[in-house]
Amino acid sequence: VKESDLHEWLRDKIPPGKGVLLGIGDDAALLDGDGPLAAASDILVEGVHFTRPEAGPDQIGAKALNRNLSDMAAMGLEPRWCLVSAAVPKGTTEKFLKTMIESMTAAAGRFGACLVGGDTARSPGPLVVDVTVLAPVGELSPVTRSGAAAGDRILVTGTLGGSSLGWHLDFVPRVSEGVHLNRHARPTAMIDISDGLDRDLCRILDASGVGARLDGDRIPLSQAARRLSARTGRDPLDHALTDGEDFELLFTVPPERAAGLESSDELAVPVTDIGEIVPRGTRIVVRGGSGFELKGEGFDHTF
Amino acid sequence: VKESDLHEWLRDKIPPGKGVLLGIGDDAALLDGDGPLAAASDILVEGVHFTRPEAGPDQIGAKALNRNLSDMAAMGLEPRWCLVSAAVPKGTTEKFLKTMIESMTAAAGRFGACLVGGDTARSPGPLVVDVTVLAPVGELSPVTRSGAAAGDRILVTGTLGGSSLGWHLDFVPRVSEGVHLNRHARPTAMIDISDGLDRDLCRILDASGVGARLDGDRIPLSQAARRLSARTGRDPLDHALTDGEDFELLFTVPPERAAGLESSDELAVPVTDIGEIVPRGTRIVVRGGSGFELKGEGFDHTF
Repeated sequence: VKESDLHEWLRDKIPPGKGVLLGIGDDAALLDGDGPLAAASDILVEGVHFTRPEAGPDQIGAKALNRNLSDMAAMGLEPRWCLVSAAVPKGTTEKFLKTMIESMTAAAGRFGACLVGGDTARSPGPLVVDVTVLAPVGELSPVTRSGAAAGDRILVTGTLGGSSLGWHLDFVPRVSEGVHLNRHARPTAMIDISDGLDRDLCRILDASGVGARLDGDRIPLSQAARRLSARTGRDPLDHALTDGEDFELLFTVPPERAAGLESSDELAVPVTDIGEIVPRGTRIVVRGGSGFELKGEGFDHTF
Repeated sequence: VKESDLHEWLRDKIPPGKGVLLGIGDDAALLDGDGPLAAASDILVEGVHFTRPEAGPDQIGAKALNRNLSDMAAMGLEPRWCLVSAAVPKGTTEKFLKTMIESMTAAAGRFGACLVGGDTARSPGPLVVDVTVLAPVGELSPVTRSGAAAGDRILVTGTLGGSSLGWHLDFVPRVSEGVHLNRHARPTAMIDISDGLDRDLCRILDASGVGARLDGDRIPLSQAARRLSARTGRDPLDHALTDGEDFELLFTVPPERAAGLESSDELAVPVTDIGEIVPRGTRIVVRGGSGFELKGEGFDHTF
């Protein structure tokens, strides 16, 4: 596959997106920004975030995009524009690349976002895909990690743990939920769980200068966490706390705005109240009569 | 090196930049955008764009950033915000990574831009660095590739060819020149030469629907093109036309606005008039009494 041929196909393939003044094919894309803007990047590496042929081109493309959309969900914002860069191993087929790109455009399009630019190069090693996503803030207020206050409830979407059994390739980013929560529940802090509940909650606690008391019996365990537990012999709760790649939203909200969220019909995914923000110094998971400390640990890349 | 430790260092290291409402450390950066915005990405791969130890961490960081700044120079815009993603091989030292990052912040800072976010992951293969650069359009008009018209002069900054002998690691992107030209000469089309004069000029010709007649004797040959020619036995002009990674600006401008550019004191780098835009159908380099066709060829990645 020649890069120049791929780019020609891309220019024809990519539909003109919302607010795109100039799309793929010049030195830069021109975007119709208006006011503050959120920007995030996430890099996906073969052999680390996926392996082939376990993951097909459609899943690789979807995961690359969806991880980034999940970052915008965690800000409570609507992703709008994506730039995709790929380092492509020799021998990659045209069909593989086109399927991967089509999967990305579909993943973006699902939430009204589009591809506006990027780059490709040859890779002498693994397939690497880096995505940058941009979101105009518009009339929304971005939700950071730093606003949690003692007394806030801690909630999470969906179920946690065992993502490696398949969810990590097939998840749907909680974009609709993030925006809905931002509009209606106004979380004081929010993050998407990419490195495990333990570590990602600690990120909120660090940024907000507070502590947390989790109710271990209320942490929603996925079927996959239970299945994985049967293999590993580890407590399913441990999987839920540390596996990572759940891509669920973890957020904090004052009790009066938390009430009703668990039984809301307006969210397509269940939401569970799993504990309380407390003053700094306490980071504990209580289960039965005993408790154990959060470690701030989960997935961490080591170079 | 643990990713979490590196990120902590980064948060402390990176100074708050212009228009950065929220920098490194949350799910996304928040940027004080206001109106249209340009966005571009460029990916740098070990073994393709550089090799180690020929290139040190400072040169790798600078090249990763400068290639992107060069894209914004080609739009005639001032780069403002950069997101950097890196896939990092096992065993990479903390010193290497920090030197690379400091080189990126210096390269960005040279033109008033700053790092606002990104991502890191482990690489089982080469070092890969992808950069996305954002530029608010502000009061400027972006210069695309598509506005060249028959009769326009074709000009280029600096000298061309032989970049592989060292310039590709040490070049200074023509950001100041791009913005100055945009303000004062208002080019009808502009591109930065990354894949060779032949191929990149043809990109302008394709986008603008025009042809070109280059004066082969006026194409500015670099010392490196001559040195490389002595090794390869190829005409230095051939190196200037096809080597790539010159990162000089190639632009078109009506004759009345081209006059004086070659002798201007206001540009820190020489500018040379190398030919004329003509109606479509002609793509020729004239030298002495004869001529040869542009091929639209130069560097192309093959996967």
